[in-house]
Amino acid sequence: MPSTLLTNANVATLMGESGYGLMNESAILIESDTIKWVGSMSEARRFVDAEIIDCRGGLITPGLIDCHTHLVYGGDRADEFEQRLEGLSYSEIAERGGGIRSSVAATRQASQAELLQQAKPRLQQLLDEGVTTIEIKSGYGLDCENEIKMLRVASSLGDIHDLRVCKTFLGAHALPLEFANAADEYIDLVCSTMLPQAAAEGLVDAVDVFIETIAFDTMQARKIFDCASALGLPLKAHVEQLSNIGGTQLACEYNALSVDHIEYLRDDEVPELAETDTVAVLLPGAYYVLRETQLPPLESLRKHRVPIAIASDANPGSSPLHSILLTMNMACTLFGLTPAEALRGTTLNAAKALGLDDQIGSLEPGKQADLVIWDVHKPSMLVYQIGLNPCVAVMRAGRWRKPPVVGEA
Amino acid sequence: MPSTLLTNANVATLMGESGYGLMNESAILIESDTIKWVGSMSEARRFVDAEIIDCRGGLITPGLIDCHTHLVYGGDRADEFEQRLEGLSYSEIAERGGGIRSSVAATRQASQAELLQQAKPRLQQLLDEGVTTIEIKSGYGLDCENEIKMLRVASSLGDIHDLRVCKTFLGAHALPLEFANAADEYIDLVCSTMLPQAAAEGLVDAVDVFIETIAFDTMQARKIFDCASALGLPLKAHVEQLSNIGGTQLACEYNALSVDHIEYLRDDEVPELAETDTVAVLLPGAYYVLRETQLPPLESLRKHRVPIAIASDANPGSSPLHSILLTMNMACTLFGLTPAEALRGTTLNAAKALGLDDQIGSLEPGKQADLVIWDVHKPSMLVYQIGLNPCVAVMRAGRWRKPPVVGEA
Repeated sequence: MPSTLLTNANVATLMGESGYGLMNESAILIESDTIKWVGSMSEARRFVDAEIIDCRGGLITPGLIDCHTHLVYGGDRADEFEQRLEGLSYSEIAERGGGIRSSVAATRQASQAELLQQAKPRLQQLLDEGVTTIEIKSGYGLDCENEIKMLRVASSLGDIHDLRVCKTFLGAHALPLEFANAADEYIDLVCSTMLPQAAAEGLVDAVDVFIETIAFDTMQARKIFDCASALGLPLKAHVEQLSNIGGTQLACEYNALSVDHIEYLRDDEVPELAETDTVAVLLPGAYYVLRETQLPPLESLRKHRVPIAIASDANPGSSPLHSILLTMNMACTLFGLTPAEALRGTTLNAAKALGLDDQIGSLEPGKQADLVIWDVHKPSMLVYQIGLNPCVAVMRAGRWRKPPVVGEA
Repeated sequence: MPSTLLTNANVATLMGESGYGLMNESAILIESDTIKWVGSMSEARRFVDAEIIDCRGGLITPGLIDCHTHLVYGGDRADEFEQRLEGLSYSEIAERGGGIRSSVAATRQASQAELLQQAKPRLQQLLDEGVTTIEIKSGYGLDCENEIKMLRVASSLGDIHDLRVCKTFLGAHALPLEFANAADEYIDLVCSTMLPQAAAEGLVDAVDVFIETIAFDTMQARKIFDCASALGLPLKAHVEQLSNIGGTQLACEYNALSVDHIEYLRDDEVPELAETDTVAVLLPGAYYVLRETQLPPLESLRKHRVPIAIASDANPGSSPLHSILLTMNMACTLFGLTPAEALRGTTLNAAKALGLDDQIGSLEPGKQADLVIWDVHKPSMLVYQIGLNPCVAVMRAGRWRKPPVVGEA
């Protein structure tokens, strides 16, 4: 079988309990779509039949994983962004039709082809930065037809752009206007019709709920979790972003894949989280955009060894952020993560947050060959520099999505 | 003379006292290196001999101007960034040779060719985002030979990359180790030898001083300002970044081109600033990286109509930021500027901060044809989206540095 040997690289394997799992002056052997071997340059000499790609001292990391995005939506919220800075209040903006409702209206109005066209440039930056797996949520359709339309667009993006797309059903993202003051009825619709239909079409890899005072309470979330569990679907939850109403505790009860945001999670709640397999997903983009000051309980998460992932939260309102590298810098600058934690957060722990850590997220034999070659000598450079993209080459499932330029990589 | 007509564009002219000076569905006529005419599509029909470029509803802005950078330096400070996040204190990092001194050592050690090579990728992102004028400071050489070396590299970047480089002498950036406890002697060397020699080589467009408790006091700055004034060179100053020791007042006394940083400027000092031609240059990147909480006196600056520019402050320590679009977003998100103020801050007011507003910074007849075509319909999109770069084409002095792709622009 033809094999490829990447040589003369500093390899951030992400193996081990913490840190980069860095192996300097190393090589990686790839056969078909799989990593076969990682080791030192001297040992690599025995692979005499492999095609050799000389990485010239560059860095190799796993393909990056953005494990929490709302990348598919109609329209933009630039006017609202501008109005807020010009002094309008949130309520005045809402009166003018702003807020999430404007995204729902624009998403419902857009055709599948239009949504796809609008999502492409947003995805392109993430692709350019070496993202090989992305999670994309529904949640701006808020009815059966439009939630399914969003998930189909997410699915198409994966087919067109050669990356893995994890599709998350987030029907319980906000209450649609037509169900004002009838949240329980909407939740019933989600459970009886919307989620089962989307799942029947094979469009749902996980189910998410926004548990918050401005969204859904834990009783309503429980109904959705029960419904999802009955369908055999894993769970995720937006929790403790603006207040603490017990979302994390509920998610722990159901052993959810992840709890996302968690700025308002209390230190005394972290031990319970640590007893589950649930990943803490931090979203510094929303923290930045909203000028939040409440920090997530990082020290407690570290102390209790809760795996921490980070993600862009790309969305039209609270986080119009489309760079995974900037997300990593923000996680360090704003939340105090170390660069190694930031890289684990967009590789191995992001894979865990998607239930895929047996397949991707680290560079070790048996895992899928998703990797990035960078024109830097050490991983901290990826996180330290703001606004630069040193991505040289991207391999997805053993094939070059962006091939190295000979004499450049 | 051959002329070019850019048609079907939304043009942010930046003319007028405030706002974008937006002219929708308009056209721009360019002859040689100069803007000849800006007006409506219907009036544009009379220019029958011009080559027509159809902008298809895209946005045209002036070429962007980054008016405060330290883009040329040796090495990086990624290790220090990582150590700080791993819990080391500033003094421990300094003991290990970190801080500005490490950049001075690396800059002195690097050849002119090496410095040029290292600066290129940092500049590339700014070029890709439509920057047509950049200011670059010396200040990591801190002796005659190395300050001049830095300014030569800055000058070369302009020759190689087709952009205007404004070279600022910042010999008084920090006290070099060999002058420890002898700041006045160092200032004497700057005034007697370093600055005059750099100026004699034609490498100095302006002279800057870092006035701060950890740098130089106002007495020392005054000596440099007197020396620069005697040489006929305009002045700039880093002031009120970490404390207030009267730097802005001194700069006002000398009618400096700009006062930069000014988080600690008091409201009661703004009226005096408003009586000069001095521009307030805000640097949100350093505010972000240093987790500063003291905000610049924006309301007072607005009230007294002080022109506000913003810049990346690209440097290896406090602002490794290389995106002018992200700088604009940060100015809005962190400082509360409006998107229109942010765009004025990287065009007309940035030109003022460099003493070039008679030549560049707005799209009006007689000014140099520096402009950018963007794949967005309204200027707020440039500021609202984080991590995307919708730049389609860049014209510098009437020539396409990045030409529009026919059928795409």
